[in-house]
Parts: sequence; C-alpha cells; structure tokens
Amino acid sequence: MPRITYLGPPGTFTEQATRALAADAPSDWGPGAELVPTDSVAHALAQVRSGAALAAGVPVENSVEGSVSATLDALTVGDPLVAVSEHVLPIRFTVLARKDTALQDVRTIASHPHALAQVRQWINDTLSEPETLIASSTAAAADDVLAERCDAAVVAPVATEYFPGLVPLVTDVADVTDAVTRFLMVTRPGTVPGPTGADRTSVAAVITDDVGALTDLLAELSLRGINLSRIESRPTKDRLGEYRFFLDFDGHVTDARVGDALAGLYRRCTEVRFLGSYPRADGAAASVRPVDSEEAFDRSARWLSDVRAGRLA
Amino acid sequence: MPRITYLGPPGTFTEQATRALAADAPSDWGPGAELVPTDSVAHALAQVRSGAALAAGVPVENSVEGSVSATLDALTVGDPLVAVSEHVLPIRFTVLARKDTALQDVRTIASHPHALAQVRQWINDTLSEPETLIASSTAAAADDVLAERCDAAVVAPVATEYFPGLVPLVTDVADVTDAVTRFLMVTRPGTVPGPTGADRTSVAAVITDDVGALTDLLAELSLRGINLSRIESRPTKDRLGEYRFFLDFDGHVTDARVGDALAGLYRRCTEVRFLGSYPRADGAAASVRPVDSEEAFDRSARWLSDVRAGRLA
Repeated sequence: MPRITYLGPPGTFTEQATRALAADAPSDWGPGAELVPTDSVAHALAQVRSGAALAAGVPVENSVEGSVSATLDALTVGDPLVAVSEHVLPIRFTVLARKDTALQDVRTIASHPHALAQVRQWINDTLSEPETLIASSTAAAADDVLAERCDAAVVAPVATEYFPGLVPLVTDVADVTDAVTRFLMVTRPGTVPGPTGADRTSVAAVITDDVGALTDLLAELSLRGINLSRIESRPTKDRLGEYRFFLDFDGHVTDARVGDALAGLYRRCTEVRFLGSYPRADGAAASVRPVDSEEAFDRSARWLSDVRAGRLA
Repeated sequence: MPRITYLGPPGTFTEQATRALAADAPSDWGPGAELVPTDSVAHALAQVRSGAALAAGVPVENSVEGSVSATLDALTVGDPLVAVSEHVLPIRFTVLARKDTALQDVRTIASHPHALAQVRQWINDTLSEPETLIASSTAAAADDVLAERCDAAVVAPVATEYFPGLVPLVTDVADVTDAVTRFLMVTRPGTVPGPTGADRTSVAAVITDDVGALTDLLAELSLRGINLSRIESRPTKDRLGEYRFFLDFDGHVTDARVGDALAGLYRRCTEVRFLGSYPRADGAAASVRPVDSEEAFDRSARWLSDVRAGRLA
C-alpha cells in the first residue's frame, strides 16, 4: 500500500485533492493508499525524497491553506521530483455547526485566514454582527466548533466526514464562484506516465537577466506550436540577476515537438528542471499544427539524415 | 493631511511598508499622512477608488500576511489605480514576550500562519517542545501574548512600538535570510511621477490563448531593449481561453522605447491596464542600448517624417 503525504491535517482541501489524486494513481503503485498528513509542504516533499513516502499531493496554484510559493521553492531545491498527475479542485466551502445551531444564531465563525478572505462577502451578507476566529486550517476551525470556541466553521466539503458530530448549515459557499486550486501528485523520477494526447508538461528554467532572454526562451515553445498555459517568475535565491521561470505547457515529453523545445531550453538556460509530463485534469487534447506533428518531425529527420549522408541535396 | 489605507491591523509588515511609502510620498500630497487600517486589501483599494482615501499601501510580491493574488485581482477590477512608488521590505521577524520571560521558558508561540511557516526551522531549533498558536496577523499575535494566551509572538519589527509592555527576546529571525516583500503605493490616476532614470513600469495585459501570443507580446519589449523584471499569469475570470499577464519592466512611460512598446501591447492585447511608472526601490538605473535611446527614436522619427514628406529617400 503506497504512502502518500500531504500538508495536513485531514479534512482540508489538500486532503480532498490528495485523495482524488490517489484514486487515480498508477496501477503499479498497488491497491489502496495510506494518506499521511505532515505539518508543511516541505516536509511532505522531504518524505518523498527520503523514500519514507512514495508520493505527495501538493498545491501549485491558488492554494486556500498552504503557500504555493513554498511548493514551487521546495520543488527546485534538493533531489528532483516529478509530477505524475494533476487535480483541479473547485473552491466552494461548507459551513459546519453543532446540531441545533440555526444560521441566524451564528455569531462567531472560524477558518484559515485565506478561506475567510474568500467568503468575507457571504459572511457580511448573511450573518448579523459576525465575529471571525482564525484557525491554522479549515479542519482546525471545525475543531474549534466542537470545542465550543465558536459557532460555525468554514471548511472543505470533505470535512463533514471527519466531524460527524457537526452538521452542514450551508454548502457551496464562495464569494467568487469559479475559484479553483490546482494540485499535483509528485514522486521520485522513474518512469514518465505515457502520453494520452491531452497532457501537460511542467519545467522550472533559470535564465540570466538579459534583455530578450525570456522572449527567446518562449520562442523555443511557440516556434514549435506549443501552447503555454502558465508562467510565473521568481528571483533565484542563490544567484543575483537570475530568474527562475515556472512554465506549464501543452504536450508530453515524448512528443517530438516538446522534446525539441526542451532540448532548446536546455541549451539556453543556466538550469532546467523537468517537473513532469502528466494528463491534464480537464482532458483537453493538445492541438497540434501539421508542421509540428510527429510525422513532420519524422520526415524532417529522415530528410536531414539523407542530405548529410549525401543521398539527397 | 493625506489618508493612506492599508491592510491592518497596525504593527504589521504592511503598516511598516506603508509608513515607508508615506514618508516618500509626493510633496503635493501635503505634510504628514494619516494611516488608516482596513480589514482587506480590496477594502483598502475601494477607499481609494471612492475618494475616501488618497492612496493605499499594498503587497504585490511574497506577502507575509495578505494575499498577493487578492491585490493583483483587485487592481484589475473596478476603476483604474496606478502605483506611484514601491518599497521592498526585508522579512525578518522579532520575537516578543512579556517582561521576565526567558527564551528557554517559551512554550507557546503565536503568529500568522505564513509568518510561522517562515520561522518554523528556527522555532524547532530554538524552543523545546514548542506549541504554535495561529493569529490573524503578526500584530494580533502580540495581543495574544499580552492576554497571556501564549508566551511569545513572531512579529514585524515595527510591532515593538505598539506593544511597549512586551520586550523583544530575539530580533532578525528568519529561516530564509534574504526573503523580501514588495509593496506599492497606489492612487487614482492623475499625474505620473516624473522619470528618474531608475524607474519601473507595471502593466496588466490580457491576451487570447493563442500559440505564440505571449512570445509576440514579450518581443514588443525585448525588441526595444526593455528588461522584464517580473511576469505572472492568471486566468481571467470572465472570459474562457484568455490570460492576464502582470508585467513589471525597467523604464518609464515617458521613455520613447517604453511608449513605443506600450502602444505595441495596446494593439496586440484584448485589454491593457497601465499600473504605473515609479522609481525602483533599489535605485538601479535602467541600461539603455544606443539603438533604443531617446536620441535614436528622435532621429528615426525625423527621418521617417522627411521620407514621408518627400524630402529624403
């Protein structure tokens, strides 16, 4: 049974996402999965690096509880880790209270500060003279309700399973209705999941701070018809005047156009870390122009080889 | 006396940065400044938009307490606001306790979850069997010490002024010693601060999700020798398949090369929002290639005008 770590405690959005990722895990990981909460994303990844766990579920975009920059930084320091799957979780909250509490009786409501920030409008519109109590996670807020330190908690839907003594007063609460958090399942490098035609590839690339360096780097992708879905720059901590870019783009490392682009990045960058090729959560197939198809790359390689051998001109 | 809002309470890193920004405010804002805490970045900006405040101090990179994505989102929704100055604050914490508490007596230590995450190693290395208590801000953690809910608080250096009853046990605490947070002072559009030769310009640009669209957008900058210092993509909430890029680059909107590039962005993008040209906090002068100098642009404009008028060929 594989051990999979995540930023705990249980009953949070991260656990909910890690569960979904575990349900989708490669079949050679064996049946079932033991989900192991840790106290930070860095510790979750450290356990994977040391072999104490097989994989970790980590937030990489718009986290409600953990810090995304902590994940990105932890992925680039220490032994390489690669993503094998992604999960996109809609961020809609459940409000839990003790039995016999009516919504109009709620005075004090608890949650993680980021979760409270995402339901502030709802709280002000719904509760009269609301007071908020800060918790270290959405699940810890439910503990606060049980301990009668507050009347209600803003939690992840999965929390209802962990707090059977509490009842959901309202579900699907969110000021911004289409907020999502993206999670990745990361593991030690080994085999890359095979291409599905609807894959995403992630890399972290370090370039020196020269005018046009980023344009040239991105041209390696756009020249090959590769669609970028996310970019984020972070200054590198160790070398002044260098930037690290986190890039997500359509396609799989085994695709000819992606391999060609990655080799180009490798030539241009001080450092390139492959962070994985994995099926897109939304299943959207990559669109490939005829000029960038496998067949086109095949034909061009054959032509070049013939020319080099003197068989063609 | 200008009113300047910020994400409160007083005694936090955000207040410390907003104070520094206020000390540097344009002289026509009048002497002194009344710093007004609000309960969210969105509210701080709403007060500026409504005219209830003249300006707001907001975090835009690596915030310890507020959410940077909340700032970026709030800047792109509603009436335009522009930055007039920036401040970069080193994130190093002070540990406050009640008088007569020795470091070895500290059992329970409080702070905002993001601040605790940045001193976790120090806590584990320094305290024996430490327990942490979550607070809604670093300043609220100091309140918890005063109320004897915990032994010590991890706070911003400025908090010492607000809690004279507490004493600093340790200063300059940080697991990562070079962490910084960047803040901007934003106000309603009006006059742009004049160029200093060491300026930064910020824009939010929306482009459709076509292969190469971002490369082309960045080429508008790199072709004109403009150095990009930060890029971050966020999906737009209202239109599927569109991305909003937050770009920071060297130079001032009145520079010929920057104006030329901005006009190019305007032609390429679904939407461009100018977020300000302001002096760089580090005072680093922009390097300008001869081919992109004011004089070169001047000469090329004169030449074109002569050719168009039939005076030259």
